[in-house]
Amino acid sequence: MIRRVGIDVGGTKALGVALDETGAVIAEDRRPTPRGDHSLEPLVDTLVELAESLGVDGSLGVGVPGLVTREGVLRAAPNLDGVADFEVGRLVAERLGHPVSVDNDATCATVAEWQLGAAAGTENMMLVTLGTGIGGGLVANGAVQRGLNGFAGEFGHMVVHPNGPRCPCGRRGCWERYASGSGLAMLAREAATGRRLRAVVEHAGGDPQNVRGEHVQAAAREGDADALAVIDDFGRWVALGLSNLTNAFDPEMFVLGGGLAAGAELYLDPIVRWYSELLYQPQLRPLPRIEFAQWGPLAGAVGAALMPGVT
Amino acid sequence: MIRRVGIDVGGTKALGVALDETGAVIAEDRRPTPRGDHSLEPLVDTLVELAESLGVDGSLGVGVPGLVTREGVLRAAPNLDGVADFEVGRLVAERLGHPVSVDNDATCATVAEWQLGAAAGTENMMLVTLGTGIGGGLVANGAVQRGLNGFAGEFGHMVVHPNGPRCPCGRRGCWERYASGSGLAMLAREAATGRRLRAVVEHAGGDPQNVRGEHVQAAAREGDADALAVIDDFGRWVALGLSNLTNAFDPEMFVLGGGLAAGAELYLDPIVRWYSELLYQPQLRPLPRIEFAQWGPLAGAVGAALMPGVT
Repeated sequence: MIRRVGIDVGGTKALGVALDETGAVIAEDRRPTPRGDHSLEPLVDTLVELAESLGVDGSLGVGVPGLVTREGVLRAAPNLDGVADFEVGRLVAERLGHPVSVDNDATCATVAEWQLGAAAGTENMMLVTLGTGIGGGLVANGAVQRGLNGFAGEFGHMVVHPNGPRCPCGRRGCWERYASGSGLAMLAREAATGRRLRAVVEHAGGDPQNVRGEHVQAAAREGDADALAVIDDFGRWVALGLSNLTNAFDPEMFVLGGGLAAGAELYLDPIVRWYSELLYQPQLRPLPRIEFAQWGPLAGAVGAALMPGVT
Repeated sequence: MIRRVGIDVGGTKALGVALDETGAVIAEDRRPTPRGDHSLEPLVDTLVELAESLGVDGSLGVGVPGLVTREGVLRAAPNLDGVADFEVGRLVAERLGHPVSVDNDATCATVAEWQLGAAAGTENMMLVTLGTGIGGGLVANGAVQRGLNGFAGEFGHMVVHPNGPRCPCGRRGCWERYASGSGLAMLAREAATGRRLRAVVEHAGGDPQNVRGEHVQAAAREGDADALAVIDDFGRWVALGLSNLTNAFDPEMFVLGGGLAAGAELYLDPIVRWYSELLYQPQLRPLPRIEFAQWGPLAGAVGAALMPGVT
């Protein structure tokens, strides 16, 4: 039996899975992600250990959080200290004696949802991960679209407000300033500073400056109207970016992943409602489907495992 | 010899070309575009006449300004009065006795530049037409990307400023409010209202409210510093949208077409300079090329002629 192993390297942990030939997950394992200035060698060790513990016997796929060239070199990874121009694929392959394919983690998640998840059977789809920031990937004409440098799918850095809040990337008003977990918290803090959001601020321990996305979620689940208004505003920002992407690509569907997928039932209605408002000429077309991801936290690892067989 | 005939239907004229097997233009003809509430039948007549005058003897391609379904139905065309759900392909094919393929005019122009123009040899490219508004098209993984409904490439309606000026499409702050010919005129009128732009206003006959893009161009060509500052600002807005598209798609190159291509020598430097400022992580990648289109006003017709052979 062929065992396909994939590892998703996150900022805090590396999560590995083994899939059987049908794509079912038959094993799962994880290790803390080594951090610090000299983390490259320990990171290679961790990947080799994980792959071996999962019984790798053919190719290995690795998803990493950052810009990955088409040759599998991790050029930069804001969430992995000291990592730049890291030839992760070559180094791990030398140790393992198996070929290793490396890709951006959101591109891997895209492959998982496209091949075996919410977007199975589509030819043109986009995955948008709503987490601390926004990542993503796209399938165009039945193939993963990596782009000139392998950097396609950096949807979070589309500028949607030129005078908006400063983004760590150096620009202002990137989509992920509004439509990510950080964005939700910012929208909530702004509303709280205006002396609303009593229930949300209570969830945050009483200080508006401590408000995070989870506090908004908690109050919204209790039916708090102020919290639901923040989520509606958040849904508008998510929808704005999705409608921009639709105007450019007209995909068959959007799959929404990332950490906020855990609150899908709160977000989906406002997102879909605002999307049909904001889209160009919505009356002239069947709207693309918008659904949350099926693979949850396993998407990156599953997609990494599938990646060696994907063009 | 196979003669490929293409017609580009514009708001004022329909322009037809015939290509030989090498793609060289061997004949060209034009007719006024019929206007008015009952323009469908006269428009079909015009297309048939043009195709016959150009010696159509095989398939015909037609480019039309609006949203075209994948079945070749023109769903809506803001610049052609009274046109909605126009089955142009079927109606013309019945009269001609030849198959007719119909596509969006900017998609046709994309094919012309991709197959026989500035982007020849690329697998992933975007054409952006800077005219009264902004249209475009894209090639992904070596195939034209039409999208779910055939509406891909409506780049002009990406929202880049949620509180920006109202767009005829009903939203605010669409990219084409800033980065088209209309946008250039708006930026110039705003600057002129601030009592600058003496030379530009003179070109416009003395009234700041009459300023159009061509007046800015004329003053800029004379070296007027105020006009050049407006063009620099305009270049920043063009670059903002191009960098958004790059973050999503990471194309090999952008081809800029449309009416503003006539002033390419004024616009290209500011666009490229701002683009390298605004792009996410520009230091980590070779920048995609940005060039103006090679086919000029013939792009739509040439692409329409090529379209029947393009997947």
